[in-house]
Order: sequence, then C-alpha cells, then structure tokens
Amino acid sequence: MEEVDHLAHERNNAEFDVEAMKIVWAGSKHAYEVSDRMARLVASDPVFRKDNRPMLSRKELFKNTLRKATHAWKRIIELRLSEEEASRLRFYVDEPAFTDLHWGMFVPAIKGQGTEEQQQKWLPLAYKMQIIGCYAQTELGHGSNVQGLETTATFDPNTDEFVIHSPTLTSSKWWPGGLGKISTHAVVYARLITDGQDHGVHGFIVQLRSLDDHSPLLGITVGDIGVKFGNGAYNTMDNGVLRFDHVRIPRNQMLMRVSQVTREGKYVQSDVPRQLVYGTMVYVRQTIVSDASCALSRAVCIATRYSAVRRQFGSQDGGLETQVIDYKTQQSRLFPLLASAYAFRFVGEWLKWLYTDVSQRLQANDFSTLPEAHACTAGLKSLTTSSTADGIEECRKLCGGHGYLCSSGLPELFAVYVPACTYEGDNIVLLLQVARFLMKTVSQLGSGKKPVGTTAYMGKIEHLMQCQCDVQRAEDWLKPNVILETFEARAARMSVACAQNLSKFSSPEEGFAELSANLVEAAIAHCQLIVVSKFLEKLQQEIPGKGVKEQLEALCYIYALYLLHKHLGDFLSTGCITPKQGSLANDQLRSLYSQVRPNAIALVDAFNYTDHYLGSVLGRYDGNVYPKLYEEAWKDPLNDSVVPDGYHEYIRPMLKQRLRAARL
Amino acid sequence: MEEVDHLAHERNNAEFDVEAMKIVWAGSKHAYEVSDRMARLVASDPVFRKDNRPMLSRKELFKNTLRKATHAWKRIIELRLSEEEASRLRFYVDEPAFTDLHWGMFVPAIKGQGTEEQQQKWLPLAYKMQIIGCYAQTELGHGSNVQGLETTATFDPNTDEFVIHSPTLTSSKWWPGGLGKISTHAVVYARLITDGQDHGVHGFIVQLRSLDDHSPLLGITVGDIGVKFGNGAYNTMDNGVLRFDHVRIPRNQMLMRVSQVTREGKYVQSDVPRQLVYGTMVYVRQTIVSDASCALSRAVCIATRYSAVRRQFGSQDGGLETQVIDYKTQQSRLFPLLASAYAFRFVGEWLKWLYTDVSQRLQANDFSTLPEAHACTAGLKSLTTSSTADGIEECRKLCGGHGYLCSSGLPELFAVYVPACTYEGDNIVLLLQVARFLMKTVSQLGSGKKPVGTTAYMGKIEHLMQCQCDVQRAEDWLKPNVILETFEARAARMSVACAQNLSKFSSPEEGFAELSANLVEAAIAHCQLIVVSKFLEKLQQEIPGKGVKEQLEALCYIYALYLLHKHLGDFLSTGCITPKQGSLANDQLRSLYSQVRPNAIALVDAFNYTDHYLGSVLGRYDGNVYPKLYEEAWKDPLNDSVVPDGYHEYIRPMLKQRLRAARL
Repeated sequence: MEEVDHLAHERNNAEFDVEAMKIVWAGSKHAYEVSDRMARLVASDPVFRKDNRPMLSRKELFKNTLRKATHAWKRIIELRLSEEEASRLRFYVDEPAFTDLHWGMFVPAIKGQGTEEQQQKWLPLAYKMQIIGCYAQTELGHGSNVQGLETTATFDPNTDEFVIHSPTLTSSKWWPGGLGKISTHAVVYARLITDGQDHGVHGFIVQLRSLDDHSPLLGITVGDIGVKFGNGAYNTMDNGVLRFDHVRIPRNQMLMRVSQVTREGKYVQSDVPRQLVYGTMVYVRQTIVSDASCALSRAVCIATRYSAVRRQFGSQDGGLETQVIDYKTQQSRLFPLLASAYAFRFVGEWLKWLYTDVSQRLQANDFSTLPEAHACTAGLKSLTTSSTADGIEECRKLCGGHGYLCSSGLPELFAVYVPACTYEGDNIVLLLQVARFLMKTVSQLGSGKKPVGTTAYMGKIEHLMQCQCDVQRAEDWLKPNVILETFEARAARMSVACAQNLSKFSSPEEGFAELSANLVEAAIAHCQLIVVSKFLEKLQQEIPGKGVKEQLEALCYIYALYLLHKHLGDFLSTGCITPKQGSLANDQLRSLYSQVRPNAIALVDAFNYTDHYLGSVLGRYDGNVYPKLYEEAWKDPLNDSVVPDGYHEYIRPMLKQRLRAARL
Repeated sequence: MEEVDHLAHERNNAEFDVEAMKIVWAGSKHAYEVSDRMARLVASDPVFRKDNRPMLSRKELFKNTLRKATHAWKRIIELRLSEEEASRLRFYVDEPAFTDLHWGMFVPAIKGQGTEEQQQKWLPLAYKMQIIGCYAQTELGHGSNVQGLETTATFDPNTDEFVIHSPTLTSSKWWPGGLGKISTHAVVYARLITDGQDHGVHGFIVQLRSLDDHSPLLGITVGDIGVKFGNGAYNTMDNGVLRFDHVRIPRNQMLMRVSQVTREGKYVQSDVPRQLVYGTMVYVRQTIVSDASCALSRAVCIATRYSAVRRQFGSQDGGLETQVIDYKTQQSRLFPLLASAYAFRFVGEWLKWLYTDVSQRLQANDFSTLPEAHACTAGLKSLTTSSTADGIEECRKLCGGHGYLCSSGLPELFAVYVPACTYEGDNIVLLLQVARFLMKTVSQLGSGKKPVGTTAYMGKIEHLMQCQCDVQRAEDWLKPNVILETFEARAARMSVACAQNLSKFSSPEEGFAELSANLVEAAIAHCQLIVVSKFLEKLQQEIPGKGVKEQLEALCYIYALYLLHKHLGDFLSTGCITPKQGSLANDQLRSLYSQVRPNAIALVDAFNYTDHYLGSVLGRYDGNVYPKLYEEAWKDPLNDSVVPDGYHEYIRPMLKQRLRAARL
C-alpha cells in the first residue's frame, strides 16, 4: 500500500511548531488529547461512516441516524466516557440527531426552569434515556416573537390539570428537532391561562408518545415537517410539527422554578430572579460561536489543502502549472477566512470565560453585567454565524467546479450550517438588540454611569470622537494600539451618529424603525471590535511553541485589516482614517498574505481534523485528490448499470423516432 | 372550493399598470404572449410536476428527468412549436437535462466550428434527436485553462484516422452534462497531434455509445461523476466522466471550419477568422446574464410575497402583527435585490442587441468592437451570476426558518444556480480578463486611440479624474447625470489608480499578479457602471403604461444608491463623493424604499411566474402559505408510518435499557 503525502513539501515549509499550535487551537493540552482520542475513535468505527450520506433516501438516511445515535450511546456507556468525552464523541459523529435536542435543550430546560422536585423526577429518566425529550417552542406562525406564541395551557381546577391546546393552525409547533418521529416527551411552551387570565408563555413537560409502542398519545398529532436544504445535512433530523387537541397534563408538569400555579389556580411568582433565563441564553449562544469556528475552520481546511493541490495556468515550457493558492486573488479570499476561523475560536474561548463569570455573579445576585453580556453574546452569535455561512460558501467557490460535488464535503457543510443564522435568534433581530443596547449606553454617557465590559471603550468617547490615526507607513498598521483605537473610533462614531440621527425623530421608536438598517451597521462595527480586541488580548498571553505567536499575530492583523478594507466606507466616512491610510492597510494586507502563504497548510493542520470528520475528497490530509475523486464517482447509484433506468422507455423511442406512437 | 387572494389588498395598492409592466419585463408583447402560453402549458401538464423532486432518490429523479425531457420533445413535435416556443417550453419545465447540452452546446459547436459538409451530415441527425450530443471539454485536471487540456487526438496517416486517447488520470473528461448516461455523441476537445507535433486544442465529433443498445463503444469508459449540491437541483443531470483508450475516429470528424488536417496529415489553417469563437462566447454569456435575471427575480418574487404574508412583532392590543416587509431592515435587503433583478433584465436585453451587432460586424470582417464586447460580456456574466447566487441565498434568509424547507423552493433554486459562478468562465478569472482590458484601455488613452462601447467614458478621463459631485440635498441623487458621472468617475479613478500602481513594478506581469485583488475591484466598478448606465438608458426610452416609468426610475435609483452604499469605500477613497454626500444617498435610499413598498407585490407579479414555475409554498400567488406548508409536510416519506423505521432496532432498546445486550 503506497502512502504518499502530496502535501509533505508544504508541511516542511512551515515556520512554526504545528504541535504547539494544535494545543493553542484546542484550548489546552487536555482538551487536545480528549478531542484527538474521540476523533480517532469515531473515525475508526465503521458504524460512523458518513461518506454515503448524500446518496441515501430520506428514510434510509434517517434510519441510519438512529443507528448511529444509539451506537454512540452504547459506546459512551461501554467505555464509561466522561461527560466531556461523550460530548466530543457526539461532535465527531457529526450528524444532527434527536440526541442534540435531548442533551442540548430538553435537559437544560428542566435543569434551568424546573423545581428541585421536578428535576429529581425527570432528570434521572432523561440521563438514562428512558425518556427522550425535545424543546417545542417555535410555531408555524411565530419564531422570533416568542411572546406571540399561540398554544394555550389552561388550568382546570376541577381536575388539577392543564389543558394543552392548539387553537389555530399557526399555533402548530413547527421546527423542533427530534419532535417529528422520536421524542417521547417535550418541553412545550404555551400561554398559561388561569381563570380566564393570560399570564404569557411558560414551559410544560408533556408526554407525546407511548413508552410501550411509540404511538402518539390521545389528542396529539405529530409528524415530520419535510425535506430541508441539502443532501444529508439536516435531513438526518426529524424536525417536527405538533398539534394538541385538549391534551391534559398534571399541574406539576408546568416548569415551576420561576413561577407557579397553586392547587387553587392562583398564579404566583417565586423569588428566583427571572434574569436566570438570560444566563441560559448566554450559554447557548456561546456554544454557537464555538461551533462557528469549527464549521468555518473545517471549510477553510478543505479549501486550503485543495488550493495547494490544484494547479492551473502559469506553466512555462511544459513544467508544472501554478498552485492556485499562490494567486493573490485566491489568497485575498481564503486567508481572511483562515484568520476569521482563528479569531472566532479565540472569541469563543473568551465567551466561555464570560459565561462562567456571569453565572458566578448570578449566584451572588449580581445582575449588573448581565445586559452587557447578553448584548455581547447576541451580537457575536450573529456576527460569527453570518460570516461562517458566507465563508463556507466562499470556500466552496474557491474549490472551483469540484467544490460543487458532494464528495467535496462543502455542499453538505453549507446546508447543515446555514440554519445557525436563524435559530436561537435571527441574526438581524439580534443585531437590533445589540443596537438598542448601544443606543442606551450612548444615552447614558453623560449620566456618569460607566459603560462596562465590551462597551468600556465608550467611556473614552470624547477621545474617540476626535482622535487621529497616525499611520504613515504600511508597517504602522502592525501596532496593536493603532488597530484597536481605529476600530474603537469607528464603532463609537457610528453609534454616536446613529444616536444623533435618532434624536431628530419625533419618537424614539419611529426613529429606531426608520434607521434600523444603519443601526445594524453600527452593531456590526461594535461586534467586529470585540472580536479584534479579544484576538489582540490573546496575543498578550504567553503562547508557547516556536513561531506560534508570530503566526497568530499575522492572522490577527489579516483579520483586522481585511475588515478595514471590507468596511472601508465606515472608516472613511467617520473620518477614522484617510484614503491614503486605507491604501497602506491594503499594502500591508498583501504582504501579510505572503507571510502566511508558506504556513497555510500547517495552519489548517493545526485544527487536527481527521479525514473522517472533514468528509472531503478535496481536503484529504495526503492531498491525493484526483484518484479519489475518480474512485468516488463510480459509487453513485446511477453507475450501478451501464444503461440507465428509463433508457428503454424514454431515450430509445426518441433516438429511433418512435415517439409519436409511444405513450409516455 | 374557496379561493381567497390573501395578497389582494397589496395588489390593490399598486400605483402602476401591472399588465404594462409585464410586457416591459418580457421585452415585447409577443415575447410576453409566447412565455405566458408556454408557462401555462407546462403548469397544466401533470408529467411536468416537480414538487416531489427533493424527495426522490437519485435514480428515481434521473429517470423522471428522462421522462420529462422526452415528453417535452413529444409535445414540441405534436404542437408543432416554433424554435422560440420550444425554447420557452424547456425553460418552464425548469429541470436541467441532457437536452440543455444537446441544444445549447453540441448543436452550436457543430454549427460554429463544423464545415458546410459536416453541418449537412450531423445537424439533421441532431435536429431530429436521432443522435444526442454533449460538449466534452473540461477535464479532471483542467477547467479554466482550456489550453492545458491533456486529451490527445493523434492523426494516423496509415488509416486516415485520429486516435483519441486519455494519457493521464487528470485528462479524464469530467463535468460535461448529458455525458454520464445519455449522450450518444460528443464534441470532444483534445490536443491535435500530427507527425509528432502538438497543434493545441481542437474539437472532434466522437460517438460514445451504440445506437442499438446504448452500450459504450470499444475503448470508452463513461459514467456519472456523482451527487452534486442540493436536493433535486443539478442531480437531474448526468454530468459525466469519460476516458478514451486509443479510440479511432475518421479524419472527417475533426471540426474543420477554422483549421484542417489533410489526408497526408498536414495541418492547415483556413481563412475563416478565429475570432468567430469569441462571437459564440458573447452569445453564450449573454444568455447567462438573461438567466441570472430570471433566477434572481424568482427568488425575489418568493421572498417579497412571503414578506407580505409573514407577520411578526409589533402587535398592539392583540391586533395584527406587522408585516415583515414593513421593516426597514427587510426592505434594505430585499428591495435592492428586486432592483437588481430588473437591472439585470435590462442589461441582458442590451446584451442581446450587442450580440446581434457583433455578429453583423463579424460577417463584414469588422473585428474592431470584438475585444470590448468580449470584455463587457465576460464582466457582466461574472457580476450578474455572483450577485444572483448571493441574492438567492439572501432571499432564503429573508424568509426566516421556513426558507430552509425545500417546500420554500429556495434551497433548490440556490443549489441549481450556483454553478453559474463557475461554468463558462470562473467569475474571478473573468474579472481579471476585464481588468486586463481596462489596463490596456488606460495605457492607450494617450495614444489617440479612442475607447469604444462601454469603455467610451474613458475618453473623457481628464474630466472624470477631477470632477466634483455637486449633490447638496438627498433629492439631488435622483438626477441621472449625477449618478452616471459619479459611477464613471469611480470606475475611471480605480482603473487609473491600478495602472499607476502597476507601473511601479519591474515587470507588468509581476505587478498584475501582485495587485490582482485590486484589479478585480476595478473591474467590478466598471461592470457596475455598465449595468447602471444601461438601466438609465432604458429609462430614456418610451415606456407605456400608467406609472410604469416611475416605478422603474425608483428601482434604477435604488440599484445605483444601494451599490454606492455597499461600495462606499471606493467612492470615498477616490474622492468621487464626500462622506456627507454618501450619507445623503443613504437618506434618499430610505425614502425610495418607502416609495416602492406599496408596489412591491405588483412589481414581482410583473414577472408573470406561475406557481408551478416558482415551485414555492412561500411564494404562492394567493399568499395562502400556512395551510399549504402544513399540507406539504405530511407528504414526506418519513410520515408514511407513525412509528419510524428503525424504532424497534434502535430506539426501543435504548428506552427499555436493553442496549448492552443489543447488537447494533
């Protein structure tokens, strides 16, 4: 068996310690080792094979997912994996499944919103998977506006029960993952009604299916909502539709940590602070940012390796053609995405810290940082998922025609990723929340209330409104303070400009509606500043390994200067930089690309992705692309026979001019 | 049967004559009538049903395509359709098939590159579909660099034959549509070798499959290259792989219009000008621009209608919530795409004229306008396809979560559309060609050679380098000359800046490589100017129908000012406008959105798309979205049974804690 590494030359060129970078990427040596072990475990297990996914019919695909999910669970038990290991194993199985919602939403909802008693009753069942749960919030008619949900839970004091009901078609639950075919239970969000009074949306544990034969219980209509974007992708998940026809559940199945209904039907609030809900949102969105760096790095890894394998044009005298990664057009599209993947990784790491910090404060009844933390995670969720979705598609295009084949792995990666722009808060809606927070921060600047956390820069607003960028040569753009102040000034000036424009309207709400597109841009500027500043902070830490820090510095400046070029209009129109300085930034960017070029392959090797996880012929570690593409082709079902089904009915009569007689 | 038009109120609000706009969109009354007739013919024929496409397996899908293609051919014969009608009918069948390549590439290749004799022999067979042909150019290792193709056609004087051969794995033909399973013949591009000498790439007619039993002929290995991006989408097409093992064809199957090989094996050039090839490229790319406006308008139609149906937030006192189309954030993303669809339509119309003009000149041996026409079509192909691909995905996101369902029609539209960014010239490679032409134009400005056609504005370069935009109020941006000169100045200044920077390098080629990312931006500025100027020219024509012209004016300014905002950095850094003027443009843009809002539904109705063609529950003409989404869901194969396949093997053992014993 011949094993040639077609990218060995590229790897030998690297100017830094790849093994050290792997640990930086993973976050710690421990995290690296767990990840590495779980990735190999999954890759070596034939049950977890996924290369055939795009060829399976929906039913086959779904059945296969059940097989994998159950097999994963079995392995987790057999190998007595820790929670961390189990989570990494599921990550590398890399297939959306009902278990995601069970562990990621159902269990946390009970933990966060259930009373002690409720947790004691339900969590052991869920932990052992004796019940499988999902999270039934979104309805056909309401997604972003959770307060507009229509499902009702009406208390019946005669029987001490809630009656769960879907009063309209649009009140049908729609989208919850795991609901369509698998979940036995759900946390259902419904309007609580006692004694004719509507108390708004609350969570209820509702059993959906019989634990004996899996048939839906009386009054419950449930099914899958149909095929979604892409081959394989999210079609492994049974996103579901659910309607209730006066379904009765015991009173104690309302999640009662924050508010309760008494036996008499009285609605009472507990003294548990409602802000806890925001803590959970910070957690969930933090994981989404971390997932963004994974998805983007994966696409970048594929596109970078293939760009080093692919050659086109530029051959002199019959010699080798130029590797496409050597073209500046390719570099100027690919390297900013490589830099973004690292940037998102580090901001995700920081968000983990933020979540811990917020949690500790919440336990100490300190809610002071919560609004800022909430705005910050909302904004970063929006920024990183939008950039990642666009970035994956850009990577696909960077692979030319072959990126359009499912065997490239990129179509499925795109299709499975894009819902992240919509779920857990539509990205535009989230940016408007950030903008609202920014406008509030600006309005309070005069009041002596000091802006905290990621808005702390607003505290030096007077300086930022008038400071001048003093870049005179391209290299001046490599100074951390120059970058930071330029991004701070841009974000601050855009927010202040919005605030000033808002004040011209008769009502703030009217102004906010009218200027919402500008407000979104100000919010983006703020979020980009956060990512840049956290990357710069990372560089202040001690980073071991030969050359590692230098590479990260180059990537950090690429990320910042790429943003500066992309949003040049912002920087110029707010007077933060001059056109000449913008042009120097561009010169510096080009020279950074040249600096990263010899390290590009090693920088994606540092993600430590197995070929199984990448799932891409173009992104193979060994670069042996063409023979494997050729091999893959013959596996298509259409190649089962030389003469295709339909030839005799449709093609032959046409060729033989017997069409008029034929009945098609 | 209740038929309610949920969008009737929107339609009644329109301030212009929709029927007149339909004719403007179609290009002429005649074109409108033919289109309308063919669209209805297809929509009413159950064979052409396509809503089940995403659920079919590859084999079922492909067989169904054969059925449709043959049925379409049968209808074309039965109804004695004209060429125009047949082409519209195929358009509305809306499913990539081998016939696209047969009619769109195989036949034109023989027409354009074959001798009179060859045309007489092959065209009648092709016209009657007694043979089915494809276009075998791209190889596994070469796409953009056609001159690097590796397949060889070696003349054997002993037998008066060419030997077609695939010398390497990377020389395998790869991607040609219709090749994989259906075509009986192909025009194969191969390096012509006579007497040991390589004459570069030429076309050859090669029979691939037996006309008796469809089996591949001796020495030919052929198959499908596998699953591509998306559900349905391009998987209806048998993009193929093809290898030759010393396949012999008669000498007269080389396409010999431009160059010949004699009986003795002598290579001779005919006096037919080689530039003819560029004429064909202008034609093909012109059709791609026209297709772009169709694809984008289709996505925009879906997103616009759904945005008027969907309501979210903003309900006061339990009243109706706000239509999402009324949010400025939605408008600022959607209306520029609506405007782009119209802009691309009109520039496509103009390209049709350009092609006719070029063809007439070619026949009169006038090649003077060809380079400019070639650069212009290359650039417009790139600009419109990239914008359309991005625009479709943006429309999908504008539909929120429901846009992710295949029943929205948008996932398939995106997946089937994106290859347009790569085929017939990778979009970045094309922009570099445009840039090269622009640099040449700039370099010749001093020489007295007058720039022609779409580069004519370069003739007034001195004025454009120093002119000042005199916008003082937002409404000043509604003057055609202000818009035109601003776009001309930006494009000219970017080109000149590139030319100046290029001159700093020791060799032009080195400079071109180093600055290619900037050159691409200059090319884009030039192409956007073309689209804007052709839209403005359209407005100079007489446009009948109440209010039609006013709507088109609003759309034209939206398109221009949206570009100005998006590329604000270009306009500011070249000093074409001031930050204040940029801000006024933005104010004007917002007020244009308000102006278009009441007409939005009618503006997409004007595309005259049937519900069949749109293929979208969200984009239904009657706006009856929710009941139909609900109805569609139940058609998914997963809903065939209440308890899913795999429950007994995988789910029940887990729930019943019998996993350790189970063998999965």
